[in-house]
Parts: sequence; structure tokens; C-alpha cells
Amino acid sequence: MTRTRSPFAAVILAAGKGTRMKSDLHKVLHPIAGRPMLAHLMATVATLNAAATVVVVGSGREQVEPLVTKAGGRVAVQAHQMGTGHAVQQAEAALEGFTGDVIVLYGDVPLVTAETIAKLLDRLHGADEPAVAVLGFRPDEPGAYGRILADGDVIRRMVEYKDASTSERSVTLCNSGLLAVRAADLWALLARVGNDNAAGEYYLPDIVMLAAADGRASVVIEAEAWEVAGVNSRAELAGVEQVWQQRRRARSMAEGATLTAPETVWFAHDTIVGRDVTIEPHVVFGPGVRIADGVTLRAFSHIEGASVERGAIVGPYARLRPGAEVGEGAHVGNFVELKATRLGKGAKANHLTYLGDADVGPGANIGAGTITCNYDGYGKYRTLIGAGAFIGSNSALVAPVAIGDRAIVAAGSVITRDVDDDALAIARGRQEAKRGWAVDFRAVAAEKKRSGG
Amino acid sequence: MTRTRSPFAAVILAAGKGTRMKSDLHKVLHPIAGRPMLAHLMATVATLNAAATVVVVGSGREQVEPLVTKAGGRVAVQAHQMGTGHAVQQAEAALEGFTGDVIVLYGDVPLVTAETIAKLLDRLHGADEPAVAVLGFRPDEPGAYGRILADGDVIRRMVEYKDASTSERSVTLCNSGLLAVRAADLWALLARVGNDNAAGEYYLPDIVMLAAADGRASVVIEAEAWEVAGVNSRAELAGVEQVWQQRRRARSMAEGATLTAPETVWFAHDTIVGRDVTIEPHVVFGPGVRIADGVTLRAFSHIEGASVERGAIVGPYARLRPGAEVGEGAHVGNFVELKATRLGKGAKANHLTYLGDADVGPGANIGAGTITCNYDGYGKYRTLIGAGAFIGSNSALVAPVAIGDRAIVAAGSVITRDVDDDALAIARGRQEAKRGWAVDFRAVAAEKKRSGG
Amino acid sequence: MTRTRSPFAAVILAAGKGTRMKSDLHKVLHPIAGRPMLAHLMATVATLNAAATVVVVGSGREQVEPLVTKAGGRVAVQAHQMGTGHAVQQAEAALEGFTGDVIVLYGDVPLVTAETIAKLLDRLHGADEPAVAVLGFRPDEPGAYGRILADGDVIRRMVEYKDASTSERSVTLCNSGLLAVRAADLWALLARVGNDNAAGEYYLPDIVMLAAADGRASVVIEAEAWEVAGVNSRAELAGVEQVWQQRRRARSMAEGATLTAPETVWFAHDTIVGRDVTIEPHVVFGPGVRIADGVTLRAFSHIEGASVERGAIVGPYARLRPGAEVGEGAHVGNFVELKATRLGKGAKANHLTYLGDADVGPGANIGAGTITCNYDGYGKYRTLIGAGAFIGSNSALVAPVAIGDRAIVAAGSVITRDVDDDALAIARGRQEAKRGWAVDFRAVAAEKKRSGG
Repeated sequence: MTRTRSPFAAVILAAGKGTRMKSDLHKVLHPIAGRPMLAHLMATVATLNAAATVVVVGSGREQVEPLVTKAGGRVAVQAHQMGTGHAVQQAEAALEGFTGDVIVLYGDVPLVTAETIAKLLDRLHGADEPAVAVLGFRPDEPGAYGRILADGDVIRRMVEYKDASTSERSVTLCNSGLLAVRAADLWALLARVGNDNAAGEYYLPDIVMLAAADGRASVVIEAEAWEVAGVNSRAELAGVEQVWQQRRRARSMAEGATLTAPETVWFAHDTIVGRDVTIEPHVVFGPGVRIADGVTLRAFSHIEGASVERGAIVGPYARLRPGAEVGEGAHVGNFVELKATRLGKGAKANHLTYLGDADVGPGANIGAGTITCNYDGYGKYRTLIGAGAFIGSNSALVAPVAIGDRAIVAAGSVITRDVDDDALAIARGRQEAKRGWAVDFRAVAAEKKRSGG
Repeated sequence: MTRTRSPFAAVILAAGKGTRMKSDLHKVLHPIAGRPMLAHLMATVATLNAAATVVVVGSGREQVEPLVTKAGGRVAVQAHQMGTGHAVQQAEAALEGFTGDVIVLYGDVPLVTAETIAKLLDRLHGADEPAVAVLGFRPDEPGAYGRILADGDVIRRMVEYKDASTSERSVTLCNSGLLAVRAADLWALLARVGNDNAAGEYYLPDIVMLAAADGRASVVIEAEAWEVAGVNSRAELAGVEQVWQQRRRARSMAEGATLTAPETVWFAHDTIVGRDVTIEPHVVFGPGVRIADGVTLRAFSHIEGASVERGAIVGPYARLRPGAEVGEGAHVGNFVELKATRLGKGAKANHLTYLGDADVGPGANIGAGTITCNYDGYGKYRTLIGAGAFIGSNSALVAPVAIGDRAIVAAGSVITRDVDDDALAIARGRQEAKRGWAVDFRAVAAEKKRSGG
Repeated sequence: MTRTRSPFAAVILAAGKGTRMKSDLHKVLHPIAGRPMLAHLMATVATLNAAATVVVVGSGREQVEPLVTKAGGRVAVQAHQMGTGHAVQQAEAALEGFTGDVIVLYGDVPLVTAETIAKLLDRLHGADEPAVAVLGFRPDEPGAYGRILADGDVIRRMVEYKDASTSERSVTLCNSGLLAVRAADLWALLARVGNDNAAGEYYLPDIVMLAAADGRASVVIEAEAWEVAGVNSRAELAGVEQVWQQRRRARSMAEGATLTAPETVWFAHDTIVGRDVTIEPHVVFGPGVRIADGVTLRAFSHIEGASVERGAIVGPYARLRPGAEVGEGAHVGNFVELKATRLGKGAKANHLTYLGDADVGPGANIGAGTITCNYDGYGKYRTLIGAGAFIGSNSALVAPVAIGDRAIVAAGSVITRDVDDDALAIARGRQEAKRGWAVDFRAVAAEKKRSGG
């Protein structure tokens, strides 16, 4: 992805109000695959080594700026919404002295790929040296999109839908709004863009016709429609999420994972899945997951911030939370939660268990209903379980506590003190029996019920 | 929805045998979104303040009548299936003296909207005073539906598919069967409908041509095909459910909820979802749910009869059962079930817990594996947990029992008596250790296994 | 399915490398509906009483042979991939002396039905005695498939796409590769097939034109495209799985089950579902399941190797594992796992429970959080729970152990010895209270936290 290319900067427009989202959260911060839309774009331009990234924000700067800064970008503010041309102009100060190319992106058009951006930038330096390289697309329903009239890839005219003639409207090549242009050209052309139109706005695409007036041609490159799909509502957010997921699922399958029911598996932006992994229906990934080769993820599993080593079996109904590390060939069964816990090679925790802040040695067996008591309301404490240890069912391990190698904890025990290697620990009440007690109880209970007691 | 309109009665036909459902349950009682189809229709006409609702039943009266009565309607019986005209006639006695309009609906066509019914009724009182207002639609595959030939919205002819000429069959406007007509006209026209046809049945649509013979025109109003989709099989039931769900999901998104994977979320008929609510993949609602603004419902949650207040986080794998009330900012985590339980503001029950018939104070922390023992086989008893209390993991709280404010229950305790405010309660066995015991056990067990013991 | 028909043998080609699967598992062993593709085919021909089944394998014989042998078939080896004609020839030795018909199938085309195979075989013995009966289909995108040119069902010419003229390419009837032919004809014709083509391979379809050269016509029978869909990648595997599931869901609905959300329910190849069964959204079946009439399977249930009797309610979040038998009217609730366990008529295990190797009597009530401790690291032991017994919540039953009829186990007990009928068993620590202890604890804990301890 990092080829020799003129230096470029990205200007990402994110000043729209996003009213239709009906949200207190800035539109560009709504997530796709567990990551804000804006972060997707910034990650994409980062893979191409952008020299600078400027995000133009209207309102909600305080929400957006932390993300931008963390990703190494800068924020520019467009105080009043006066059109896309005006918005891009607000980035000029932040790019002062920058003489390379500029790619204009949109915070609510998150799926554009690095390949497409690279193509736009590279096309700008084609032999014919176009003034602007515009990204076009052919939507299923061209509707009210602006049209691009081109001879080959040379743009003859760009026209807003409302200004288009019937024959122009029949053109299916539409303007996505994304474009690449040299910085010097951009600022010079933008300075000439006027707002003599119904909305009184400064339109970015006008730079194409201004360049043409100077005798400089611009070109169009076509992207697939999904790549430039915009998000203006929650329904469109879900639509873009679906596109992202479909592509991600297809990639995992192409790389050799079986997804029994691909449409029921939801990946995060950074999920890593190996070869010969089987993912059963209804599996959800949060961020930060790595699944090694040959792993089986059974149905209804929920996995985030976790690693699973070769040959392990996870689920059904397993929840791996951040810091869960499932060792080679280990088993995590149903209704089992792991948090900040390493489960050693071949270890098993198969039923109704909570392991938090624990280190479980290889080959250990964690019985059904085992609970690590890792929190006392103030601090979190660790539980160490030795190699080959056997934790009897329904035990509570009160951390900090260490169970030795090959030690056995008797079922139903509450363990508060360390257990030596090879020792048995038992901590439970003595069993007493009251013969016939149930007969009396039932008689009394039934009577009480009868009398409404 | 309640505008000034002539009084109207609804006649809902539900006499079909529903053989293709292969069910012991009457067809119109099969649920959509957790509510019987017939109840959907009765609720729809109720929003328009129907003066009366008569449901015409063939067999299965004993199954249908309780629902009808509860919803304020009446049942009429069609002893023998002799056509839709005959079926509607059976409602005449129940509507004796009623002089308003009648809307004819079908118990197995449950999605028709109040808006459409209102349009039909209102059209009946248009300036041209039509005799009948018929609901037409244009299905993807017109197939064997009866066709409506109209000039503008004035019906020229209604024709059964089998009686239609080739050119008539090429008409795409079909008859849904739903119609509005003045009561006086309805009974008078029905009395003139004959059964001189192959099936020997009395057809309701014949009233249109009878009115025409009197020189009175009828009109057609078009509905979208989904609105008049009928249910004759479980596959069609699933199809109508899917339509209902898609519309419901779209509404939630339009109102400002994020549905990461809308097609995996299943609403009930009365689910209320606030703004800036996030619903992750694979969430199922039963009836009676209210989700306040800003709530996060994580994946694999199942919620019925419950309310969740602002900012709470529920799931993954949380089950809220009827009577669960999750307070503001509270957390309900994985493999946690709440039934008839109030979880106070900011309280947490994060892992493997059953809280039944409990009242948990604000800020309380319920440890992993906590179980309220609310049932003794006869009665149900309540558990009270005070504000800021800390219930150690794997504890059993044997109701009736009260844990005081800020009290602490030690992990693994079985609590049978009340605990004072600020007290520590501990109820568990003492831990004993048997050094080297596991070595001997393993030797014996291995030997036993070897010898097949 | 077993009509009088000439004896036939099946030759199943499974020599392809399956490189695009990117798998260490032989392609034909990848599962559809929980069963290897090859096993689907072998089961299909078994329903028609094939006289013999020969599977032609290239590499991976050691993976494939156990399945073939177990299903009563034989393996033949094609050492080098020299075309489909050559592959079929490798089966000649294994079918020495067999004089009936041969049907040629493909290990990666698993959905072909017994009906279609029967039609091909029967057509071979039509009055016109065709030499070969070929299975054709009309894909949505004919693309590069070989075309079949036919007059009526008589094949005029079969042509590879690359050799086809423009007008031949416009033909939409394509060659699936499946065909039926008499054994004697097959071996004789195959011996004459040459490899004078670009790939230097021996093509099976060439036998059709060779027979034509002898003056013997061949015929084509059309199948629907889904039936001959091939699997060359994980995406195609998922596609074929989806087709299989859609058909299976449709069948269940036609037979009288309600699937609220059919597309979220995943059946296994042998799932049996009764009438008036309700299956809520998000339910997954493994192999070996039988669901009786009137059962409700609630959302998020995972069921394999289990039987559920009439009127039982299972889920949500119930996991039934192999050997689970849920009795009539019994309830299995949320976060409950049953393994090798019989749950008697009307018994209930409603919350957070693991029952393994247990036998629960009718009407017994298993409290929340009950765990059977059935495994000591070496052997598995059984737990017997009597009729009408009441197991208090959060109890551990350490097997082998028997709880008597109508006995009561107090909540939170660890039961290690048998309990008599009608007795109460209690085994837990005494509750102690330390007044004001929590105040001191909090002070110390807060101080520790402040000081970073």
C-alpha cells in the first residue's frame, strides 16, 4: 500500500449537523464494525502515509477533536455551513506551506478504500496532468445526485441534478464528492468559487468547471457504489455496516475460515481470523480479537479483546472479554466468561463459570459453576491455578489466592487460603439429614397456601 | 388518528379453516410480533374508535371468543362456509340498528394500517358518494387474484381471475377483499348476492357490481402489497412477521436508535425504544418492554415485560423477565436473569446471577454467581438488598431475607437471616487441607480406570 | 423412494484438490447441516438402494476412506488428475462384474436429490433407450459452463464454453456433469475418450458425442440450479448451506411448525420437528435431535443429540447436549445445560444449572444454580433425583449420589451422601454476623486504594 507517490494531505469534511441521526453523538463518531466512521477514514489514509490529515468540523468539535488528535490529525472549524467549497477552505490554514496533493473525503462516507484513494492521487499525475481527479459512481437509483458528463475519463461537464436537462439526467455516472487536486490548485480555485446559487453556498465541485475555463481538463475515476455510500440516518448506518460486514465475511471465507451462517456473524474492524477456523451461527466479535488456525467458535459466542490459540474450542455461549487468552487446545464451554484471564494449554472451563483476573495452568480443569471472586468492591485481585489442578464444581475462589499444581478443590468449596501443590482443599458445611422433614414442610406450606398466608 | 369521521363498525372475517397452517390453534390466533393476528386488527380498529367490532368465526369459536370479548368485540358464527358474502351477513344481527359505515377486514390479513382503513372510510364520504370503497393492490405476481378494472379510481368492473379475459388478466390492480360500505347498503346489497357460480358461494365483491347495476359507482383505493398480505401457511406467517419487523426496525432507526444488525433484532408489538439507544446484534424482545434513552442493549439479550432506564447497560446474554426494572445507569451482565426485580440506580449484577422477586438498592454490587432462593416449592418470597450493599460471589440469599444498606456478604455464603446495615455476614464452611491427598487420589482413580472400575 | 428400478451403482468423484477451500480437511468432508458433503451424497444414493458406491479420491484418501467404508462404499484412487473421464475410469475395477446402470455424481455437488437421480436412471430406460441421460440446468449466469444443445430432450451437441460459437453461448441450458449411463456403455465409451485438447485431459461428457457417432442418442433432464450447485470455496460452501437450510426451514413450516424468524434457525441434517412446535429466533440444532409436537423452543437455544417431548418448553438460552431427554411438559430455562440427562415429565430446571449424567424424576424442581458434580477428573458418575424432589438453589450434588423422592435439599448445600425419600438434607456453613465490619473494611480499602496499595 505504501508506494512512491507525491506527498498528499487528506481533508475530511465532518461539519454536517447529522440531524437525521437524531443523536447526541456527532455523526462521524457513530461506529461501523465497532470503530467510529471517522476513525475508519483516518486509518485508511494512514495506510497511504498521508502527510497531514485535517478534519473540518462544524459543531461538536469537543466530541471529535480527541479522536482526531489521537490519530495524529488536526481539526479545522467551519463556523457556519456555507457549502463544501467553503468547508474545504477552512483547512487551508492548517495546511499552510503544504505543496503536495489534497484528497477531499467525507466523514460520513467511511468505506472508501485506500486503493481508490491511491488511484485518484495517481491519476492526478497521469501524463495528461489533469487539474482534478473526481470520484464518480453509478448508483442503482441515480435520483438527485449530481451527474458527470465525460468523454472517456475526461470530464466535459458536472451538473447538479436540479440544473440538469432531461438528457443529462439520463446519464448514470454520478458525483461522489470525493476528489483529488494539487494543494496550490485547490486554494487558488476555491478562492474563485462563488455562491451565486439558490442555496447561496460555495460548492467544491465548481473547481472542476473553473479549471476547465482555464483550459485545464479534469478526469473521473469510477468507484463501486457501496464504496461511496453516505450515512445520513441510522438506517444508512446499518446499511453501511452491512456492506462492511459482507466484505469482511467474504474475506474470512476466502482466507479459509468456514462461516456456517455468514450473515449471522458480526466482525469488528480489527478481527484476525486464521485458516481452518470454524465459526458457527450467531457469533459476535468486539474489537481486539485474534483467532489462530484451527479454532472452533461455537454458536452464540461473544468475543472481544481476546486471543484464542490453535485448536481451541470456544462456546457455545462463551464470552471472552478483554484480556482473555485461551491456550492451544483449551476449551471454553457454555455460559462461561473469561476476563483478563489466561487459560493454559489444554485447560478446560466448560460450564457456568466466571474466571476474572486469573491465570490457569495447562491441563487444569475448572468445574461447572466455578467463580473467581476477584473484586471486593474496591480492588481487583488475581487467582492463580496451577498446572493440572482440578477445581470441583460450584467452588468459589476468593482472590488473591493460589491453587497449587495438581491440587484438588472439593466441589462446593469456598477457598480463601492458598492450596499447596498436590493437596486437597475442602471448605464446605457438613451434610445433615432430617428424616421425614419434607412431609411436614409440605403439609405446613400447603396449609399456608390454602389460607392465603 | 382520532379525527371526525362517520361512526363505523368493523367486521372481521375469521371463519376460514386454515388447514394449511396444520395447527390446533385457530389461524387468527397465530402471533405476529408476539400478538395474535386478530388482536393486531382489533387494536388497529380501536385506534380509529370503531363503534363496534364483529368477528365472524366458523369453527374454533371457543378459542377465539375470549380474545374478542377482552378487546370489546362480539363474535358471530358462520356455521357453514358459504363464501365471504355469506360470512359478512352473519354479522348483521350483531350490528342491528347500527347505521354507520362498515369496514370488512380479514383475520388473516393483519397488517392493514389505521391510515388505510381511514382512507377507505373517508373516501366513502367523498363528494361523489360512492357505494363501496374497495382496497386494491398491485402484487409482484398478480397470479390468480381477482382483478379490478377502473377508470381513475372509479371501478368499471371487478372480475375473478378465472372469469377474466386475457386483456383483463394483464391488469395488475388486484382486489384485496377489504372494503368499506354503508351498513344499510351492505345488508341490502348482500341480500341480493347470489351463489350462481362454480363454488356455489356468495361472494362479497359482488355487491360492487350490484350497486353498479343500480347506477351507483364504487371506487378503489390502492394499498401497498405488504399491507394486504394474507396468512394461509406458516411460511406466509413468517413472511408477514418479517414485513412487520422490517417496518418496526426502520421506525426505531428513524427515531434515533442504532441497530447494528437490524435483521437480527426481533421486536414485540408494543416495544418502546428511546433515542440514542444502541441495540447490538441478536436481541429479542417479548411484549411489555420500555427502553429509555441512551441505553445499550448488548448482543444476545432477551427482554420481556421489563423497563430499562437511561444509560443502563444490559447484556450480552442478559435475560430480563416480566417485572424487571433496571435503574438508571445500572448494569446487567452476562448470563444474568432478572424477574420481578428492581435493580436500583447504578447497581450492578454482572455475571451468572439469578435475581427473582428482589429489590436491589442503588449502587449495590451483586457478585458473580449470586442466586436469590425465592421459591420453596410453594410460595415465592422477596429478597431486599440495601443501597450500596456488596454481595460476594457465589452467594445464595434464601428469601425472605433482607441485606442492609452497605452490608457485605462474604463470597460463597448461604444467607438465611437478615443482615444489618454495615454488617458483614459470612456463612460458609471452614477450609481444610489434606496435604498430598491428590497424589493418592490420582493413583487410585487411575488404577480404577485401568481396571475398568 | 424405493421403486423397482434396474440395479445401479454410484460413482462419486472426489479427486479435486479443493485448493480454494484453503483447508487441511478434504473438500468433500466439509459439512453441510452438520454432515460432510460426501455423506449427504452417500445417504441420498442409499435411499435409492444403490448396489454399490465407489468414491474416486485423489489425495487425502486417509481422510475420506473411513467415512466411505462406514457408509458401505468403496474408495478408488486417481493418482494423477487427468480429467473427469479418467477419474470415472478408476472406478471400473471396483465395479468389475457389475452390469447395471451407473450414476456419476460429484463429492462437491452435495444437494442433488434422490428424485432427480431416480429421474435420470429411469429416463435411461425410456422407450427410446438413450445411451446417456445427462443432468442439465439453467443458471442465473450461464457464464463459462459447457452448453447443451438439444431438440426436445434429445441432445444434439454438448460443447465446452471455450469451443462454443456466439449462438451456442446464447443457449442457457448448461451441463452439470452428472449423468446416468449403463455400466457396459460407460467403460466401452470411456476407453474411446481421447485427451486431444488444450488441457490434455480426458473429459467424461465426451461419451455423449462418441455414443452419437455410433448412432445412439443421449438425453438431457433439467434440474433446478440450486440442486447442482458446486462447492469450490468456503463462500460456495456457505451458499450451499444456505440453500439447504432454506429448504429445510420451508419443510418444517409446511409440516406445521412456526418459525418466527426462519432465517435465524439452523437445522442439522437429521433434525426431526413436530407439529405446532414453535421455534423462536436464533435457535441452532446439532445432529441427532427429535422435537415432539407442541414443544416451544425459545430464543437462543442450542440443541444437539437430544429429544424433547410434547409440550415441553426449552430456553431461552438452553443448551441440550447429547443424551438430553426432556420429558413431556418439562421446562428447561435460561443458562441451563443438560448432558446425558433425563428430565422427567413436568420437571423443571429453569435457571443457571448444569445437569450432567443425571436422572431427574417427574415433577422434580431443580433450583437456580444447581450443579451436578459428575466428574472427578477421571470418571463420570450419575446423579439420581427422585420424583417430586426439590433441589434448593445453588446446591452442588456430588455424584454418585441419589436424592430420594419428594426429598428437599436446602439451598446452598453440597450434597455428598444419598438423601432419603421425604428427607431434608442440608449441608452448609452457619451464618455469622460481624456488626459494623463493613464500615471498617471500607475505610481500610479506601485508604489502601488512595495509597495505591
